[in-house]
Amino acid sequence: MKSLVNVLADGTYSMDKEDLLCYGYDASGIDMSPSAVVWPTNTAQICKLMQFAYQNDIKIIPRGAGTGLTGGAVPSADSIIMSFEKMNRIIEVDTRNLNVVVEPGVINADLQRALKDQGYFYPPDPASLNICTIGGNVAENAGGPRALKYGVTRDYVMQLEAVLPDGRVIRTGVQTKKSVVGYDLTRLLVGSEGTLAVITKVRLKVIPVPDNVITLLAAFSSLEHAGKSVARIIGDGIIPRTMELMDRMTLSAVNKYKNVGFPEDIDAMLLIEIDGNAKAIAADVDKAGNICSGFQGKVKIAEEAASRELLWEARRSVSPALYKISPTKINEDVVVPVTKVPELLAGLQSLSESSGVPIACFGHAGDGNIHVNIMTDKSDKQSYEEAEKLVRKTFKLTLELGGSISGEHGIGLTKSKYIDMELDSVNLEIMRGVKRLFDTKNILNPGKIFPPAGVDVR
Amino acid sequence: MKSLVNVLADGTYSMDKEDLLCYGYDASGIDMSPSAVVWPTNTAQICKLMQFAYQNDIKIIPRGAGTGLTGGAVPSADSIIMSFEKMNRIIEVDTRNLNVVVEPGVINADLQRALKDQGYFYPPDPASLNICTIGGNVAENAGGPRALKYGVTRDYVMQLEAVLPDGRVIRTGVQTKKSVVGYDLTRLLVGSEGTLAVITKVRLKVIPVPDNVITLLAAFSSLEHAGKSVARIIGDGIIPRTMELMDRMTLSAVNKYKNVGFPEDIDAMLLIEIDGNAKAIAADVDKAGNICSGFQGKVKIAEEAASRELLWEARRSVSPALYKISPTKINEDVVVPVTKVPELLAGLQSLSESSGVPIACFGHAGDGNIHVNIMTDKSDKQSYEEAEKLVRKTFKLTLELGGSISGEHGIGLTKSKYIDMELDSVNLEIMRGVKRLFDTKNILNPGKIFPPAGVDVR
Repeated sequence: MKSLVNVLADGTYSMDKEDLLCYGYDASGIDMSPSAVVWPTNTAQICKLMQFAYQNDIKIIPRGAGTGLTGGAVPSADSIIMSFEKMNRIIEVDTRNLNVVVEPGVINADLQRALKDQGYFYPPDPASLNICTIGGNVAENAGGPRALKYGVTRDYVMQLEAVLPDGRVIRTGVQTKKSVVGYDLTRLLVGSEGTLAVITKVRLKVIPVPDNVITLLAAFSSLEHAGKSVARIIGDGIIPRTMELMDRMTLSAVNKYKNVGFPEDIDAMLLIEIDGNAKAIAADVDKAGNICSGFQGKVKIAEEAASRELLWEARRSVSPALYKISPTKINEDVVVPVTKVPELLAGLQSLSESSGVPIACFGHAGDGNIHVNIMTDKSDKQSYEEAEKLVRKTFKLTLELGGSISGEHGIGLTKSKYIDMELDSVNLEIMRGVKRLFDTKNILNPGKIFPPAGVDVR
Repeated sequence: MKSLVNVLADGTYSMDKEDLLCYGYDASGIDMSPSAVVWPTNTAQICKLMQFAYQNDIKIIPRGAGTGLTGGAVPSADSIIMSFEKMNRIIEVDTRNLNVVVEPGVINADLQRALKDQGYFYPPDPASLNICTIGGNVAENAGGPRALKYGVTRDYVMQLEAVLPDGRVIRTGVQTKKSVVGYDLTRLLVGSEGTLAVITKVRLKVIPVPDNVITLLAAFSSLEHAGKSVARIIGDGIIPRTMELMDRMTLSAVNKYKNVGFPEDIDAMLLIEIDGNAKAIAADVDKAGNICSGFQGKVKIAEEAASRELLWEARRSVSPALYKISPTKINEDVVVPVTKVPELLAGLQSLSESSGVPIACFGHAGDGNIHVNIMTDKSDKQSYEEAEKLVRKTFKLTLELGGSISGEHGIGLTKSKYIDMELDSVNLEIMRGVKRLFDTKNILNPGKIFPPAGVDVR
């Protein structure tokens, strides 16, 4: 690694123990010390570094803010972490053409703030939006509550500049809303979890802020009824911008963590937001409210912006809050067709009951995306093994319901041993071929996505 | 080809001269006789046929309705055309989960009709929607007027079943709105123009029909003013569902062809549709109308459904109408950022004036997608050569304005020699790698997209 000095100017990299420690883990909880951390400041530097890595067979792990929950940014042994903190410029805001150009290290919320004043927004809003970066969002195809109405990161990426493992720059996509010129390499890179190329610049679509938003809170004494309300609302042709579910355990954890005063004597709460023209949405708000009432939900409207923001702060604190109530939580992120949400919730409840392992469910119920949190204790071997068995059972249930084992967190390290439950050998063969095509030497974020060697592929 | 008999049951293929003639061309005007035409009725048959083709190095050309304008469905020498007329079932309409499953031969308008009664629609609406098929739409990533607000085919494809060149079935994507499980092979296949795999089944997202739609007609005595109105409307944060432009030559051609009574003493017309809640859109209609008036446009509102349908019939007849006023038309399909539409139109006008070759412009101005029709006569060598030079100049102008050389028609055969104007050698190298990965033997729609051998890559 000494020759790194020849590749990068002083000060843009570190091999200090403290840095290696700080960049050795992500929100998955897995850690592994890298050999070095580099903070590139521009694309040319990244090209130089990748050439160096390519020639010397050094593994490079691109890293956003490390908020990923599947270990996508965790180092391999003897690897260099490439962190984008110094590439955080918003290069261009072009509202007249409805797009922006940013460096990968721009924090999602910073982009939101820059746009808000001009009356525009960038819809993807992962719960970690105050920390997570656009580069990481693109690599993981991040979602968030608003994905229900507005779609995921993939739907907003227009152009990418990226550096290939051999150090060459590739520019994909167009700055127009349409184009059919060769294969869609842009969307091949979106969600590729840093395994194909290092993203160095992103052009994102933005849209005008809707005039109004109304927030509904519906409290249910039955989780099943909450799930049925969700399915009915979508089935009746109402597309809220968000429809978030929190179960009893989640509500209690958030109250303890944030003291927001959520009711605790209920089994589930739905947080529904409908946006658009005031008159247009009034009818939808009524309909959605009536559907919830029909399933014995108690419905309240949060009129003021301030109280809405409090609700969202509470919602975004769910993940950290759950960490507080149990020594270990296994965080899964499954998604099913929205009509199957009640069955998924019921199935999870019975898995929890039969195993005696608590499961907390919350998430983006409106698009069928439920974050399943299996509460356990890593230090108690037997209980942890029991909990781990539940992961496979959760995925099996999800797939039987026509779902997918990862709605928005990606596969990374933690799910790679399960990927063959969803993808057959033909898919995996083609995907491995794509990986080889881009990364012949397997130096870019190796070991992510694909099942580790020695793991039986069904 | 005799052994085809062993592969397919009698009656599902033909080597009759009449059939070879009928399936030997598409809307690009290029023709070439295939060796046979097959009409598979199910996926298993396609697998058998592809295995046969793979073992015997026979070229297979998948074909929808042949409405493509770049020759994507034109046979190669000694190839078999695979036509999907007999695979035209709508397999499932699941409005509660907002999606449908169809076979590739389903006609776009048939799907629209099936959905309409239930209050849903499938947004992509190419002008050929009464003939063109979903399989072809997916292969070409088709757009249409409504793409302005609702996006293109890519944005609606959730799952694909396809047969690889070696005869194996691949199933990509998920039936949920989200998923991050490996690389996005679904969108890699969308827009791949039948060169990677044969699409055999498609799950498409559908959305509820908006409550209301208002149609505005704005007549301008200056093409530039029409272009500026388009840019201003989008820049002001109004997103109509369509914003179609027709220039003087286009209006006159349509009048001759359909006798719809479009005004002819004007230089351009905009056909704008704004949809949504009645009260919500009224404000946008006013704003859009005022912007057009501000550029001296004469604005009229088409209130009735019947008169609106007439307008759209007229709009959809533009392409055939233009064929009537000139022996040959070279049909291009460029797209620029919407703020650049006025510059593009002005540039095209000056190209036409300096060359003496008439150019008719129409298309989806709201998303910057202009169909550029260079009017010429193939039998007049000199005039045709002059016209062909304009193609390259049109693309050069488009790319200088930050645009793309194909908005929605693909590359096929007719644009393959220009693709390197837009894509650099790194992009082409990776794309060729993708082609080789899927189609090692180059038997699936060979010769499409990529520059022909012997053509200088810049």
